[in-house]
Amino acid sequence: MHTVAARAGVSIASASRVLNGLGGSAETVRKVREAAAEVGYVPNAIARSLQSQRTGLVALAVEDIGNPVYVAMMRAIEAVVSESGRQLLVHQTSASIGGEVALLQRLAHRYVDGMIMSPIRITESHTRALLDSPVPVVVIGQLPDDVAVDNVRTDSRTGVALAVGHLHEAGHRRIAFINGPLDTVPGTARDAGFRTALVKHGLNVEEDLIEVGDFQYAAGRAAIERLLDRGRPDAVVCANDLIAAGALHGLLARGLRVPHDVALVGMDDTELAQMSFPQISSVSLGSAERGRLAARLLVERIADPTLPARREQVAPHLVIRASSQAVAG
Amino acid sequence: MHTVAARAGVSIASASRVLNGLGGSAETVRKVREAAAEVGYVPNAIARSLQSQRTGLVALAVEDIGNPVYVAMMRAIEAVVSESGRQLLVHQTSASIGGEVALLQRLAHRYVDGMIMSPIRITESHTRALLDSPVPVVVIGQLPDDVAVDNVRTDSRTGVALAVGHLHEAGHRRIAFINGPLDTVPGTARDAGFRTALVKHGLNVEEDLIEVGDFQYAAGRAAIERLLDRGRPDAVVCANDLIAAGALHGLLARGLRVPHDVALVGMDDTELAQMSFPQISSVSLGSAERGRLAARLLVERIADPTLPARREQVAPHLVIRASSQAVAG
Repeated sequence: MHTVAARAGVSIASASRVLNGLGGSAETVRKVREAAAEVGYVPNAIARSLQSQRTGLVALAVEDIGNPVYVAMMRAIEAVVSESGRQLLVHQTSASIGGEVALLQRLAHRYVDGMIMSPIRITESHTRALLDSPVPVVVIGQLPDDVAVDNVRTDSRTGVALAVGHLHEAGHRRIAFINGPLDTVPGTARDAGFRTALVKHGLNVEEDLIEVGDFQYAAGRAAIERLLDRGRPDAVVCANDLIAAGALHGLLARGLRVPHDVALVGMDDTELAQMSFPQISSVSLGSAERGRLAARLLVERIADPTLPARREQVAPHLVIRASSQAVAG
Repeated sequence: MHTVAARAGVSIASASRVLNGLGGSAETVRKVREAAAEVGYVPNAIARSLQSQRTGLVALAVEDIGNPVYVAMMRAIEAVVSESGRQLLVHQTSASIGGEVALLQRLAHRYVDGMIMSPIRITESHTRALLDSPVPVVVIGQLPDDVAVDNVRTDSRTGVALAVGHLHEAGHRRIAFINGPLDTVPGTARDAGFRTALVKHGLNVEEDLIEVGDFQYAAGRAAIERLLDRGRPDAVVCANDLIAAGALHGLLARGLRVPHDVALVGMDDTELAQMSFPQISSVSLGSAERGRLAARLLVERIADPTLPARREQVAPHLVIRASSQAVAG
């Protein structure tokens, strides 16, 4: 700083102001910039990183930054991360396994101090890369029990059971289910949850009432068409709110009333469920809460790498709205 | 690397594999990690930053990572940025001027190679910080003409005119407008656009038909209630799709049919407009296209800081959907 100031022929205060981004007269800024370049002044962030081996950055890797469930999670994580004086770096993995594993492997370059990842599938290479990472990683989602990595999970299996129980209690018997891909962790858990819940309530599992697509709006819209063509169900449980919004609009397009003709329950309790008409009942899997917990675990882990691996569980709860409310008559 | 390998008593190949994240046997990984720590091995990313004074990171600062208009923009930016071999760092500014200016000032620390910012207001301190930044910044939005900073803009004033023209042509005369805050750049532009368009079509500006709230769903829902209490308009133009979704649901809640009783047009052409029922006509301001252009400008600017400041303009266009389609009778 002294060298730069001297070379620029300005006071140390002025040089410091410019180099710390507080500006100065155009002339001063120009002189200080030139001097800094000439003496190869090392910018603070990089110099600090070199000393501390810390970057002040934390990464979040999600499948799709546009999915409302990740938006809520991202907001919660961003709050904790910036509160800890760090900045959040968001990666979109597009649910590519290769992409997720490559991200984990690149952590060896320590371009961030830690990462929160919410993988949609957990493969051998995931667990291997997780255990090899020199930088702390917190996983949001199901992890094999023997993988000693900080983990925040929920129980979407129980979540689906809450939806089925609610609809059964309201007197619905022909309960349909629109799920996401069965080769994903959430897809398999929700499928198991649905079947178990039906049996628990003494209902038969009719494959005709189960549809599988992806976790998107268009898939929900297409699935409800197929279900209605086979005969109207009393109620529909959807594996997420995007699917539920698509199903809702498919029902309305057929002139059916929700909940009067068909009751509907989604999952994830996103803003989309609240911004629908009628508003969609949804099983909250505490996405914001999981994000908050994961960020706290990561911040603590960065501060103390010797902590034992921790596992947090967020219990699902049902948020009842108009789409499944009991209607007189 | 040689020192680490020797100290760990493993081959250079093994040491390199571990330090580059490709893993190895638990034992090898442990040894190499310890050796690396002992000799204070400098991680690649940081070492490279020091040499090149480049971080490989690009920042995006938006008001709200949850707003669907930013989601589309963010996706487009993420694509260009990762294609350029860099990573995207997303900041949420919550539209705080202090926050935006502080972010710009922190660029003096060069924690990123460049930033894309979409400020909702442009103050003196914004322009000052923009001009003082040692790192390239591309602004998405209106900028004073004398600020020589790479800039991508659209013309929401003309965008509102497209909506009014469309509704006027469909025979609507009592056209209402639900706007966002008038002390924001988009708010003032859209207000001017609406008033000018009415006059152009020989309609009177009735203050009774103009509502102002924030750019959120709840504000749209509340505003339509107030409008309806003062007498039903033929059509409603909304300053964004969140407001439009709120207005749509307020209309449906009153038992009004859209478009039969009241036609509706939103703005930003987000997924929300397509995921509504009926689907909402919306003025596209090319948010994805603006994101793409801004990211390209930034990547070019990083490669060649001597380029003159450039200004790109994306023209708005109207996407007509069910909410404003002419209905027989």
